[in-house]
Order: sequence, then C-alpha cells, then structure tokens
Amino acid sequence: MHLYGNWRSAAAFRVRIALKLKAIPYEETFIDLDAGDQHKPDFRAINPQGAVPALFDGEGPPLTQSLAILDYLEETRGGPRLLPEDARARARVRSLAQLVACDTHPLYVPRVRSFLMEEYGLPKERMMGFVRHAFEGGLRTLETRLSSEDGTGRFCQGDAPTHADLCLVSLWVGTGIFGVPTDPYPTVARIAQACLALPAVAEAHPLRQPGAPQG
Amino acid sequence: MHLYGNWRSAAAFRVRIALKLKAIPYEETFIDLDAGDQHKPDFRAINPQGAVPALFDGEGPPLTQSLAILDYLEETRGGPRLLPEDARARARVRSLAQLVACDTHPLYVPRVRSFLMEEYGLPKERMMGFVRHAFEGGLRTLETRLSSEDGTGRFCQGDAPTHADLCLVSLWVGTGIFGVPTDPYPTVARIAQACLALPAVAEAHPLRQPGAPQG
Repeated sequence: MHLYGNWRSAAAFRVRIALKLKAIPYEETFIDLDAGDQHKPDFRAINPQGAVPALFDGEGPPLTQSLAILDYLEETRGGPRLLPEDARARARVRSLAQLVACDTHPLYVPRVRSFLMEEYGLPKERMMGFVRHAFEGGLRTLETRLSSEDGTGRFCQGDAPTHADLCLVSLWVGTGIFGVPTDPYPTVARIAQACLALPAVAEAHPLRQPGAPQG
Repeated sequence: MHLYGNWRSAAAFRVRIALKLKAIPYEETFIDLDAGDQHKPDFRAINPQGAVPALFDGEGPPLTQSLAILDYLEETRGGPRLLPEDARARARVRSLAQLVACDTHPLYVPRVRSFLMEEYGLPKERMMGFVRHAFEGGLRTLETRLSSEDGTGRFCQGDAPTHADLCLVSLWVGTGIFGVPTDPYPTVARIAQACLALPAVAEAHPLRQPGAPQG
C-alpha cells in the first residue's frame, strides 16, 4: 500500500496506526502542507479535496477520508480487530471516533486556520483561540462520556484499541502541538497514555515522521 | 425507536431518511436548538455533547453521531441496503459521506456560528461568509469527484441511494437555508433532485418537520 500523509496530520496518524497494528506493509509519501503541496495539480489528481490522507491499495483508485480508510482496512485485512463484534459496541466506538474526526478535528485543519487569518484578518493568537475552543469542546465531551459510560476500559471500548482510540490519540497529540491545556481530562489522558505505550502508536507518532520538528 | 432531532439539523435529516427508507417505525422529539434546549440537563443526560441526533433503540443507551447511527441501522435492520456490498464501493460511499459529515457540516453548526459572533464579535453577515466558505469547499469537491469518478450513477454510487446521498441531500437542503449559490454544482444538483424525488426523503425534509418556518 502507498499512503500520502504528512507528519502533523491527525488523520494520517490514525491511518498509520491501523496499518502498523495490522502489520500491513506500506510506504508513505509526505506532502508538505505548509508549502501548499496539497493544492498542486499532482496531488489534486489524487484527492480533489487537497487533503491527506490518501491511500492506494494496488491498482484501484485512491481511498480518502481517514474513517473510510479505517473501515476499508477492517473489512479487507486481517490482524487485530479495531472494531468490536457487537453492533452496539461498534456504534459506540464509531460515535466516539466521529466526535473527534467529524466534530473536532475538521475545525482546526490548515484550510480553516488560513481562512480565519486571511479572510477575517485575525492575528495568529486570536485564530488559535478558535482552535483551542474546538479542542476543548471535543475533549470535554470525550471526558464526560469516557468517565461515565459502561463500555470504557483500559481503552475507549474495553481493553483493546479500536478506531475510537486511534482518533483519541490523534487529538491528544494535537494538544501538545497547539498548546491546549489537558488537566481537565484525566480519563482521556489515561487512555491516550495507554495508546502511546503501544509500539504501533509510538512508531506512527507525528513527531517521529519525516518533516517533523527535531528535538 | 425514538429519535431526538430538530427540523433544521442536517444530521437528524440523514437519520430520518434512513429510518423511512428502511420502514423502521419511530417517534421524534424535536429539540429547540435556537432556544438552547440541547444544553439543558435533560438533554445533556442523553448526549453530553449537546447535539442532535440521538436515537434510542429499545432499552439500550442512546446512539449518537449520525454516521454511526446509519451504520448501526445498516448492520441491525433489514430493508434496502444503504451501503454497497463491494468493499471498495463502500469505501467510496463512506469517503463521500464523510466529506460532508466530517469536513463540511461541522463547520457551520450552531455552536460554531455562535462562537464566531459572540467570541470574535463578527456581525451576522461576516459570520455567514465562514458558513458559505464551508459549504463551497464541500460542494466543490463533491462536484469534482461525482462528475469524474467511475462509481457515480443516478445516485452517488450507482443507481440506488446510499449513505453518501443522505449526506449530499442534507448539505443540499442547507444551501437553501443558508443562501449558498448552487449553479457551479450541476452533478450535485442532479443527484440531490433524484434524492428529493424519493418519498422517504420528501417526508423527512427539514421544512416538513414541526418547528420549521411555514410557507
């Protein structure tokens, strides 16, 4: 498989984790989002949205959208299950994953940050207020749900990682990159640490990818 | 089943369509988002995020996040299939659905519009520029993909509606509510019209629900 990603992309991080957990061999091409390479014709031909990740599996057309890719990997490949067998548990995992991947992460992607600064002339610090507000909304709901719902175990759903954990840890790593306080979210923190202790997650970590800031 | 929704909610609209296409009996309680009823303790106990839809199926805990609910209905109920059998086609449907439900719709929900006006003091018309920009990004990518990719038929994927169409028509109806120009998107328009011609979609239409503006 061939992944188009970026060191900082939370969505590409989720896909890298799944590929590594399932021991699927892949290569990754790192698109420089800061240089705008996602908008160049070569990449727009792969994903007209101009967003990573995009994944090629053999000769087929590119797969896009991180959650769609995670489901595709789950349905077509072996390795550890990343969705529970029970339909209600699966729905809970998907709901937690979408709380991050739909309702939180899209609010702080580069194209939104640029729009707020360029179109509204917001200085960087005020734009970052919007980013932090997005993080806090997602983290607060995650904390409330994970600390009160029956399904929570060592990970979001029971004691093995699922798509919900891949999303949770992708959000968690962003709190460091964007300077979001994390003290109010001890359950999220506990599960994020359990994720980060997995070799697949450690290897897929944004700061270990080419292009990431050193040190 | 018991749905908690709102006339205007694009996400609740998607779920209503699926329930009607699959002929699943349900009742709907309409939460007044303009009055802030989604933030009252009674509803926060159902969904700590303070967002619709939430769906009860029997005695189990509430199901939340529209795409997770659609997958749950697909996996647990009969009626017409709303996801294709082929894994690659299913991944394409999910990618198109998430282009709307992850990367477009969350940018213009009430909590984001309020934040821009209350926190940044943007007058309504400038806030609406952010909303229209979100719509345009989603619609442009949908148009490019649907007009060029092999899978497109009468609907987004072939000739029967899927989750992608439920998301597409939920975005399309929003263009009317938010005054977004639609001329540049003829393929999206054609598929939206095919959706709106389905009795299930017509019955589930936001403007036909209690609380919607009359006339």
